[in-house]
Amino acid sequence: MEGKRMSSSVAILFFLLVVAFTPMASSDPDPVQDFCVPVLWHGPNHTVHPIFPLCKNSSEVTVDDFVFSGIKSPGDYEATGFSGISVNPTVFPGLNTLGMSFVRADLDEGGVNVPHYHPRATEIAVVLEGTVYSGFVDSTNRVFAKVIEKGEVMVFPKGLVHFQMNVGDSPATIFGSFNSQNPGQEKLPLTLFGSGIEGKLLEKAFGLSKREVENLRRRFGS
Amino acid sequence: MEGKRMSSSVAILFFLLVVAFTPMASSDPDPVQDFCVPVLWHGPNHTVHPIFPLCKNSSEVTVDDFVFSGIKSPGDYEATGFSGISVNPTVFPGLNTLGMSFVRADLDEGGVNVPHYHPRATEIAVVLEGTVYSGFVDSTNRVFAKVIEKGEVMVFPKGLVHFQMNVGDSPATIFGSFNSQNPGQEKLPLTLFGSGIEGKLLEKAFGLSKREVENLRRRFGS
Amino acid sequence: MEGKRMSSSVAILFFLLVVAFTPMASSDPDPVQDFCVPVLWHGPNHTVHPIFPLCKNSSEVTVDDFVFSGIKSPGDYEATGFSGISVNPTVFPGLNTLGMSFVRADLDEGGVNVPHYHPRATEIAVVLEGTVYSGFVDSTNRVFAKVIEKGEVMVFPKGLVHFQMNVGDSPATIFGSFNSQNPGQEKLPLTLFGSGIEGKLLEKAFGLSKREVENLRRRFGS
Amino acid sequence: MEGKRMSSSVAILFFLLVVAFTPMASSDPDPVQDFCVPVLWHGPNHTVHPIFPLCKNSSEVTVDDFVFSGIKSPGDYEATGFSGISVNPTVFPGLNTLGMSFVRADLDEGGVNVPHYHPRATEIAVVLEGTVYSGFVDSTNRVFAKVIEKGEVMVFPKGLVHFQMNVGDSPATIFGSFNSQNPGQEKLPLTLFGSGIEGKLLEKAFGLSKREVENLRRRFGS
Amino acid sequence: MEGKRMSSSVAILFFLLVVAFTPMASSDPDPVQDFCVPVLWHGPNHTVHPIFPLCKNSSEVTVDDFVFSGIKSPGDYEATGFSGISVNPTVFPGLNTLGMSFVRADLDEGGVNVPHYHPRATEIAVVLEGTVYSGFVDSTNRVFAKVIEKGEVMVFPKGLVHFQMNVGDSPATIFGSFNSQNPGQEKLPLTLFGSGIEGKLLEKAFGLSKREVENLRRRFGS
Amino acid sequence: MEGKRMSSSVAILFFLLVVAFTPMASSDPDPVQDFCVPVLWHGPNHTVHPIFPLCKNSSEVTVDDFVFSGIKSPGDYEATGFSGISVNPTVFPGLNTLGMSFVRADLDEGGVNVPHYHPRATEIAVVLEGTVYSGFVDSTNRVFAKVIEKGEVMVFPKGLVHFQMNVGDSPATIFGSFNSQNPGQEKLPLTLFGSGIEGKLLEKAFGLSKREVENLRRRFGS
Repeated sequence: MEGKRMSSSVAILFFLLVVAFTPMASSDPDPVQDFCVPVLWHGPNHTVHPIFPLCKNSSEVTVDDFVFSGIKSPGDYEATGFSGISVNPTVFPGLNTLGMSFVRADLDEGGVNVPHYHPRATEIAVVLEGTVYSGFVDSTNRVFAKVIEKGEVMVFPKGLVHFQMNVGDSPATIFGSFNSQNPGQEKLPLTLFGSGIEGKLLEKAFGLSKREVENLRRRFGS
Repeated sequence: MEGKRMSSSVAILFFLLVVAFTPMASSDPDPVQDFCVPVLWHGPNHTVHPIFPLCKNSSEVTVDDFVFSGIKSPGDYEATGFSGISVNPTVFPGLNTLGMSFVRADLDEGGVNVPHYHPRATEIAVVLEGTVYSGFVDSTNRVFAKVIEKGEVMVFPKGLVHFQMNVGDSPATIFGSFNSQNPGQEKLPLTLFGSGIEGKLLEKAFGLSKREVENLRRRFGS
Repeated sequence: MEGKRMSSSVAILFFLLVVAFTPMASSDPDPVQDFCVPVLWHGPNHTVHPIFPLCKNSSEVTVDDFVFSGIKSPGDYEATGFSGISVNPTVFPGLNTLGMSFVRADLDEGGVNVPHYHPRATEIAVVLEGTVYSGFVDSTNRVFAKVIEKGEVMVFPKGLVHFQMNVGDSPATIFGSFNSQNPGQEKLPLTLFGSGIEGKLLEKAFGLSKREVENLRRRFGS
Repeated sequence: MEGKRMSSSVAILFFLLVVAFTPMASSDPDPVQDFCVPVLWHGPNHTVHPIFPLCKNSSEVTVDDFVFSGIKSPGDYEATGFSGISVNPTVFPGLNTLGMSFVRADLDEGGVNVPHYHPRATEIAVVLEGTVYSGFVDSTNRVFAKVIEKGEVMVFPKGLVHFQMNVGDSPATIFGSFNSQNPGQEKLPLTLFGSGIEGKLLEKAFGLSKREVENLRRRFGS
Repeated sequence: MEGKRMSSSVAILFFLLVVAFTPMASSDPDPVQDFCVPVLWHGPNHTVHPIFPLCKNSSEVTVDDFVFSGIKSPGDYEATGFSGISVNPTVFPGLNTLGMSFVRADLDEGGVNVPHYHPRATEIAVVLEGTVYSGFVDSTNRVFAKVIEKGEVMVFPKGLVHFQMNVGDSPATIFGSFNSQNPGQEKLPLTLFGSGIEGKLLEKAFGLSKREVENLRRRFGS
Repeated sequence: MEGKRMSSSVAILFFLLVVAFTPMASSDPDPVQDFCVPVLWHGPNHTVHPIFPLCKNSSEVTVDDFVFSGIKSPGDYEATGFSGISVNPTVFPGLNTLGMSFVRADLDEGGVNVPHYHPRATEIAVVLEGTVYSGFVDSTNRVFAKVIEKGEVMVFPKGLVHFQMNVGDSPATIFGSFNSQNPGQEKLPLTLFGSGIEGKLLEKAFGLSKREVENLRRRFGS
């Protein structure tokens, strides 16, 4: 009996805990309160997770919940010469329910932000430093791309594939903002060749040989 | 004290339990009229175009505006063994403002519906005939795919890359419906290699040689 | 002057024309994650209930959460010769937050799907087998109805009363999809005469005698 | 004649032009401007029609566009002892794009507001005078009804069938407001028996004889 | 171990409890069920709080959840001769998820409803008694105001500053309804001078002396 | 030929006319096309105005429609030491229907962005240069403010009053983005004292003398 009650409690804890990893089902349109800073769950090993559906009592909310200081410097470059710091409610809980999030992206000389898209947001990208070939592809398969420079702003319409490449001779920095608290992202080389889609299907879809597909899959780790 | 704690636990259980009977989540904004069948513009060369923001006077709307008869037979197969008839307000004007549209897809033996996504809709796909390897990839780069058969239904979440391949020994037919009147579509092989994205960027993004990218671009016509 | 006026007209025509290629209207708000498969609660007596606001940790989600196999065969006919299997997140949890659900409806010869409506969704209904008298009534009290057959699709605008009757000489099957995960349903004969609305009010509303209303209420069990 | 055509063209130009200064007409979710008072079209026979997607130049908008004075007195009673004045943008153009509308309803002694529903809105109904039996029926076919009096407020959830009957000994007055600029309305006795739905279907749906259905249809004029 | 489990339970209780004070992150657009009457939490000291994300099991919902009787009489006047009773899901839980709420406002002779706005709703205000100077200011800084009387209705567009003053010689009563379950409110004299904004900023913004700002701040208690 | 042109005009009139009977939609939530770059109207005196509901034929859209170069330098300072360049679809038509817009704000030493709010958007504000006292006030009248510096980001929740003051010893630059294509703005000193609200009402609302109100109104030009 005691054991049964315990396992019930554990089950409840588990139920609440899983929420921390998968922000929940309210939608980006109109919030029904000024803000909803999520309660933080202090998990094992000093981890901290926002419990999204549970708003902190407003007396415990402070101005620091609405200020983010973690994009003053760029992150580390990936192999493609790209570095991105995505800022959504998981790292900046105050954004929860406010319908927006943002990213700092840095591109080394010649660096590439590979073709990708955000399923749930339009992006406004302002170039803070550098010279960037920047563009997107619409539903009719047409590319809209050009080289833009410091101080210029490009808009990537919601859900369309877009990309950037540093074509200047110094690092570039871009600040992007989104009209969703969690825009999501599909990085297409990885989505296609790094996720485990049946090889035969990829061969037919791209007109590649079995070997060419295998090479691509090896490169992207699937 | 022990009893008090128990009843608290029971209360929590009850709180969680009642949720089970009353689903909650996101949903659709509303049209502001019953329907809006667009006025048709009779252009030059016998072309006819719906003028979307202009609703027909309701006295000129008939039941035929709400019935579509054009998917009784499949269309012609493309090179990949795929045939799709997309039905949105351009061909079925009665759908305008109603928040839905649909598609009939046919796959020849071994035919492939190449990896693609719809920027503005979830898709419910029911297999009407055949056996189909079917799946999607989420934002964390994980594939969810399996073989499904006649009478089974798969859901592709909004904006995620998905694909299908006929793995049976007869043609397959799928009926898909969308929660947008115009879901849009990016067919990724074409989006990436047939749209005119700078070759250098594609080389870096996919780790391909200049020649490999040129071959792919030639195949997809850019 | 004449030329100027003409070119103005041409400009207007052009303005109206371009609209024809770019549909516009209302549509859906967004989920804030790729998907949210609800945690299942294993209740007493082997019952299982989805806990909607709690999303499963994504590592526990599998492709089977997104495939539904329960509408391969029709359900049992009700007295009116109708059988319906409604598929929403309660029976297919993977639909949660995705903004869609669906139904399989079967009609015996002469069977009737009584006048009803879905308060929260448009319906796309495709006839898979048979011949069906099918229609809806708009806010101005006008009926739009006709006989449709296998392969034809009818759309029932959001929230409007609609109905179906098998007028062929074999059973009919319909697949309907909705742009809400939980469209709801008011079956009007039951809503009106089976719910316990004050008899006096029904007499006045329908111009029926006390006895006629009592007969109707007895038939629908209130 | 020539002059008449010219002035028509000028009118069209004007209509199109005003749009340039006031971004256009959004739907019941978030508007994209403060307000959008539609341009009025002065048609033949002194009729005046709001042209909804065209917002007046804001310099022509006055405070009178936002004040409505037409519900100080009740309208004429219908046969059921009910009188309703629906106020939406057709009669009060200032409501356009603001997501709300309202109604004044009066009930004579014993008068009935027949079972009906609004496909696109929740209703907040406050009793200004009298004593009213008031209620609604949910999707599970359950009635929620009671007698309410002056100063009490009842809420009818979006899209659910509801009804009212004056059970006091003096006329009753109700002010209802909606969260849609055009909630729509299906008055069920008329929807069902006054719209022209096939008689055979109604017989089966309600378990009525051919003659009973014919009587009902005759009463509601179809 | 026992202690650890207890503190876990306490943590869970706390998590659930805080929800009671801060209604949660579902949005005002379409609900996904007929209604969601929140579970009530009976806290210490006889306090009762609705737990918004948790819907009562529908078998425990009654008609009384949908009727509100608390605005038959006015509240007490504040110093400005204004009295307001705001009715949202905190006091009338049945409103939860239905997208509407309302207010009763009374103005003593000469009383003033100070300039304020509701960040999340349009307001429909009907004068039930009296004569009221009533208006709002749009984004271009233009006022729309006039004196309205019993039976007249004014609409205040979403998010715009508005105000009312009783200019008649008897008390006035207004019934306002909103298209959000929680419209929010910023009362500008208090927002500006009673919240603790840096004095220097207010001096510059309003062109006031340090002393004038201090006087205003003292008056509004900051 | 003449007859043909005439019947075209009549057709256009008819098209515009029918709109009068059927209100139409679209808003900041999901667009129903990839993008909608508005047709430009070349008016008298070399003015150019976007015609928002009319999308350019996509063959006439170019990448330049999606790039904005007008915020490389600050604008001129106002008297408060503030300069703002608001970028919405009126100046950057490509933003139309994409649900976002942005602003460049510069503050001279000691400069102030007066308390204001955006009725239709959350704002993400990143400090590009300088040191800024920055904050907002919530519905409960509580201020959340602090000094932030280059590289820090503050979020102002939708519809709440916020403000900024340069407290460093060099000019400051801020890039703000919004989740609405037209957030709107009420600058409170002007809204309250520069719009023409009745003086008596302001005296009572702020507890000011007639003379003090007159001084304020003179300062803000009403």
